[in-house]
Amino acid sequence: MNDQKDPGFDALLSFAHTLADRSAAAISPYFRATRSVENKSRTEVFDPVTAADKAAEQVIRNSVAETWPAHAVLGEEFGLQPGIGGAEAEYCWIIDPIDGTRSFITGMPVWGTLIGLNRLDTPILGIMNQPFTGERFWSDLDGAYYRGPDGEHPIATRSCASLAAATLLCTGPEFFDVAADLERFEELSGQVRMRRYGGDCYSYCMLAAGHVDLVVEAGLHTYDIAALIPIVERAGGRLTSWTGEPATQGGRVVASGDRELHEAAMEILSR
Amino acid sequence: MNDQKDPGFDALLSFAHTLADRSAAAISPYFRATRSVENKSRTEVFDPVTAADKAAEQVIRNSVAETWPAHAVLGEEFGLQPGIGGAEAEYCWIIDPIDGTRSFITGMPVWGTLIGLNRLDTPILGIMNQPFTGERFWSDLDGAYYRGPDGEHPIATRSCASLAAATLLCTGPEFFDVAADLERFEELSGQVRMRRYGGDCYSYCMLAAGHVDLVVEAGLHTYDIAALIPIVERAGGRLTSWTGEPATQGGRVVASGDRELHEAAMEILSR
Repeated sequence: MNDQKDPGFDALLSFAHTLADRSAAAISPYFRATRSVENKSRTEVFDPVTAADKAAEQVIRNSVAETWPAHAVLGEEFGLQPGIGGAEAEYCWIIDPIDGTRSFITGMPVWGTLIGLNRLDTPILGIMNQPFTGERFWSDLDGAYYRGPDGEHPIATRSCASLAAATLLCTGPEFFDVAADLERFEELSGQVRMRRYGGDCYSYCMLAAGHVDLVVEAGLHTYDIAALIPIVERAGGRLTSWTGEPATQGGRVVASGDRELHEAAMEILSR
Repeated sequence: MNDQKDPGFDALLSFAHTLADRSAAAISPYFRATRSVENKSRTEVFDPVTAADKAAEQVIRNSVAETWPAHAVLGEEFGLQPGIGGAEAEYCWIIDPIDGTRSFITGMPVWGTLIGLNRLDTPILGIMNQPFTGERFWSDLDGAYYRGPDGEHPIATRSCASLAAATLLCTGPEFFDVAADLERFEELSGQVRMRRYGGDCYSYCMLAAGHVDLVVEAGLHTYDIAALIPIVERAGGRLTSWTGEPATQGGRVVASGDRELHEAAMEILSR
């Protein structure tokens, strides 16, 4: 157990990397091996849950409880677990063990484990880990970073001031379950140079690394986005709601690598 | 130069693996590094071409010309190159250096190099190679195989007799540029358990490896599908046009891991 008064950022970041390593070990045996899938809700869009999802979240919860018992944990599978101090925990770990479950169960290696840490409701660090490709994206206080088969290096968004020059990623049109939202998305994506579907958390990391310019989504939960906010922002991008509010609660989200482009996208999305 | 009379299947397969190795070396320096993109046609759906595409196809063409000068080559970038015997070449290599160019230019590691070999217009072997993840899928006369970070092993499709239990992959709805085709696709995909966009050649390999049940697409070229036909078929699946004809010319394509499911899908798609 660590000193609960003043953990220090480096200790927290180092612990977050440990969580990524441990969750990867819990998940990897199931990738392309498990075919049994539960249906979380019959009334919503199909949202599969695998044994890997639960195993990884349990490993992370156990690790936090052991090392930082005063910290809260909010996860996709098992909800909110307050720290030993109750609801007023200063730090809250926000976990999506497998973001992109449809990628996972179809064998596509573009899902990721999201590990975020909020201090008093503000995201202070994030990790996206992809165990199969061996890729990790994360943030510290100063910047955002990548480690993968081709080495480790800082990442930064690229400039792209106009919609006409922009590439846009989106997980899929079926997530815009409000007709007006789909209309706004279609209007925006009709103006960009290229659109591609099927990214989940990977999309935001490709934006942070300067490979794409816009990510637009709707219907997100807190655990889908919390870890990605500091990665995008430390890389030089913006990640807000469609109306420019903080995106920490999820919902309708737009991320841009360029501030001018962000304004142009929001002008259409916020109509 | 090899004996042109009777190459033997093993020599051809071994050469195909060499082509995959050489094209990977040509492509890899450009992945997540190049940002310049040409627009092949302003009137069609945006179809980017990268320097990697051209470099890889040139390496493959040079290799075939050197080793099997009597063989023809059909590639995405540079069209048909007859063998030294003229238009009647017994063997034709069919190449798409980067299938999934939109994945490539957005940094997503789910594109692939397609290398197919037709003998008298019949596909006899295929390779799908993914240099970044280190994955390769291929076929020989008896079966289909996978090599990747987790080892090498034969692959096989899985059984799934009903649409209601099936998972469906498709690169994106925008490729159904005929309204009636989109309607049929929507009708089919409304009946399956799960649909996911954004796969290109990866989708067919995930089907061959038993992770998904259906792939449905339209608007394909010969070089988008030739290499994938023997991989899917040797793995136990079916890959035909929407009306059950050979899919060697591309167009509207449906692949299934299960014969009964293939019939059920075609019943809707061929209406």
